[in-house]
Amino acid sequence: MALSTKPYKGARDFYPEDKRLQQYMFGTWRRVVERFGYEEYDAPILEHLDIYQAKTSEEIVNDQTYSFEDRGGRAVVIRPEMTPTVSRMVAAKRQELAYPLRWYSIPNLWRYERPQRGRLREHWQLNVDLFGVADCSAEVEMISLVDAIFKEFGAPKDSYELRVNHRALVDYLLGEYLGLKPAATRDIRKLIDRLHKMDRSSFIGKVDKILTANERQKGATEQLLAILDAKKLKDLPLQAQKQPAAQELAELLKQLKSAGITNVSFDGTLMRGFDYYNGIVFEVFDTDPGNNRSMLGGGRYDGLVGLFGVPPVPTVGFGWGDVTLMNFLGAHDLLPKLHTTTDVYVVLVGDSSQGAQKVIATLRNGGLNVAVGASNKKIGDQFKIADKKGIENVLIIGKNELEKQRYTLKNLVSGQELELDDKAIVASLKKAAKAKL
Amino acid sequence: MALSTKPYKGARDFYPEDKRLQQYMFGTWRRVVERFGYEEYDAPILEHLDIYQAKTSEEIVNDQTYSFEDRGGRAVVIRPEMTPTVSRMVAAKRQELAYPLRWYSIPNLWRYERPQRGRLREHWQLNVDLFGVADCSAEVEMISLVDAIFKEFGAPKDSYELRVNHRALVDYLLGEYLGLKPAATRDIRKLIDRLHKMDRSSFIGKVDKILTANERQKGATEQLLAILDAKKLKDLPLQAQKQPAAQELAELLKQLKSAGITNVSFDGTLMRGFDYYNGIVFEVFDTDPGNNRSMLGGGRYDGLVGLFGVPPVPTVGFGWGDVTLMNFLGAHDLLPKLHTTTDVYVVLVGDSSQGAQKVIATLRNGGLNVAVGASNKKIGDQFKIADKKGIENVLIIGKNELEKQRYTLKNLVSGQELELDDKAIVASLKKAAKAKL
Repeated sequence: MALSTKPYKGARDFYPEDKRLQQYMFGTWRRVVERFGYEEYDAPILEHLDIYQAKTSEEIVNDQTYSFEDRGGRAVVIRPEMTPTVSRMVAAKRQELAYPLRWYSIPNLWRYERPQRGRLREHWQLNVDLFGVADCSAEVEMISLVDAIFKEFGAPKDSYELRVNHRALVDYLLGEYLGLKPAATRDIRKLIDRLHKMDRSSFIGKVDKILTANERQKGATEQLLAILDAKKLKDLPLQAQKQPAAQELAELLKQLKSAGITNVSFDGTLMRGFDYYNGIVFEVFDTDPGNNRSMLGGGRYDGLVGLFGVPPVPTVGFGWGDVTLMNFLGAHDLLPKLHTTTDVYVVLVGDSSQGAQKVIATLRNGGLNVAVGASNKKIGDQFKIADKKGIENVLIIGKNELEKQRYTLKNLVSGQELELDDKAIVASLKKAAKAKL
Repeated sequence: MALSTKPYKGARDFYPEDKRLQQYMFGTWRRVVERFGYEEYDAPILEHLDIYQAKTSEEIVNDQTYSFEDRGGRAVVIRPEMTPTVSRMVAAKRQELAYPLRWYSIPNLWRYERPQRGRLREHWQLNVDLFGVADCSAEVEMISLVDAIFKEFGAPKDSYELRVNHRALVDYLLGEYLGLKPAATRDIRKLIDRLHKMDRSSFIGKVDKILTANERQKGATEQLLAILDAKKLKDLPLQAQKQPAAQELAELLKQLKSAGITNVSFDGTLMRGFDYYNGIVFEVFDTDPGNNRSMLGGGRYDGLVGLFGVPPVPTVGFGWGDVTLMNFLGAHDLLPKLHTTTDVYVVLVGDSSQGAQKVIATLRNGGLNVAVGASNKKIGDQFKIADKKGIENVLIIGKNELEKQRYTLKNLVSGQELELDDKAIVASLKKAAKAKL
């Protein structure tokens, strides 16, 4: 029986045209984060299971990991996220590294989920982390960086919006203001995280099940709803506004405003799934009604490096998936037209292969990317092949051309034909390539 | 108990300095293969187990794969090699693709082996494949491409040597010339593949065990040794030299010679482990006595695409691992000195952070990569941090500088200090960066 040509479910093959788009997205990510002084790192896709058991969400570890035992009996996982890995790497060189430390990576991550729009089993994710900055200038930099990336992709300001919240503020509101017990606080927090996936009445029903009769009677449900409906910090109860966490959020919003970033607002319903966040958290949403979902998120996780037996390091980071980015660029018509990397297709006529090698070498040494056609095919067919490959220029080399040392360069888009020597071909094609940038 | 900071055994963390070297190697690979008209593709790291069971070597599939059952009961593998994947992808679009098809990829691959010099459990591998060319011009292009990559890395011609053989010639010599049965042919072929890992007498002992008493009496062992000792095609028995396979090898050597590639020779002991090769096979060896091993290899595998239920496609390809390349570059002193991507480190003095944002934005918009220091640290300490990060330039921004709109740019290597406005800083640093290329 023939083997299946399909890739593994929920994962993608990248044919050259797909890979080009990926390279465009990754290249743009890299350019902007490096402009902010971040350096690239990487790590193995396999990790020991225990680094996720500590602080990644239970749902991911228990139900969504690609975990197995290796041939030596080790419990291993194909990484579902990068944060535990980067924390491990920083911990390993805690003393040698110079802070503030700015690192990024674009790893592929795996989660066993039902594949759907915006969610696949394998995706790539830009991970950016700033280690060693305890005050909110770290969050200001992170959010400014995210904003700069959107701009670099050509995204209009009204195409995305940033939302921020603070874990300590959530804990205060649920634990102290509403007076819930730790277990109830945690359950309510997880419920709020799924708020947008249910209607209001079913949310209220679930809240009521978590609260005690006494809490319900005191009006905790209504108070909770009022908190979640707050559109600004000023809509929160006064006591809450006085909390350091609320003041830090206000400072963040102020600094972002002065940096010209105004499409950012407080959102008390923003939770972020991971257990390790302990400070400001943020997400960016697509404003397109057809694609109105969280595209990326991050926050402060000061405790993770410390789990590896070294003193903790204050850290802020975010992750941005390639699938949500691609959907966003598509929805807002921001996908560029990308061309093959090949500059010219050499059409060999007759038995000219041997003689053509020197010309081809001159072109390549001149910095051109040159593909050579199969000489046993008709000229017309070779033209069609070049066209199908999206290569704009063909160069015809036959016995006559080799004798004259002048070759016909044809542009398949404009139809223009030039007869040139090898040096002039290099100059002409490099000029054309430059004009396209 | 604290979590371990070690990566998974036999796999590597890539700190920024390691990642830089990887990017240099991958970038050089990409540049040269694209110059030959190859386009990049990619695919999921997880594949269905059955695509390896067909034609990858038994040893790899049974003993060295990272295979497991996913949560849906599918038998999956973290890919141990890329060839079955690329064949699957070509088969999936067999009719739409335009041949000759030139594809490359730099996947990470996993094999459960004892980690040792040159072999790790995770490694990256340049995979280059040319689909749709049946004659040996495909092999000429592949080997020319490999040679061009060595040159691009600055490798002297005497630092590596290419060796070629032909699977059909091996089959002829063992099956027809020596008259061995198919099973014995296969066993002897696998034994020759491990020839360099044993001494001559133990090799002879193992050969004698595979041969029948009759074959041994007829002198098959001595004939086999004479074949394996052949340094040139002309050293082979006359009947063998007349075989189409031998003539194809002679043609390949002739064409390579005319292309200026002379460090290539026939090697009758060259087998290549994979079962799918069916024509010319080749390997490249490091000539350094301390590192005298195969660095890369490839060959013709015309049958693999056809396993996916479509007509077969003639194919030649090779794989080149990052670990062997790195060892080679190290042994021959070809590793370049690589610098951080960050151009300048901004040292904030006092409460200048807010005011400095405009200057920093001007630098970044000018194309510079700018990291910002933590303003709560002393100036001297901030200089030390920049130095430790390998960032050559620091820019000092304090209240005075902001008032004058002129800032001190200091080169930490030369010690030179300049007082410039923001535009002049961009110009100065871009000029310095350009001079370094």
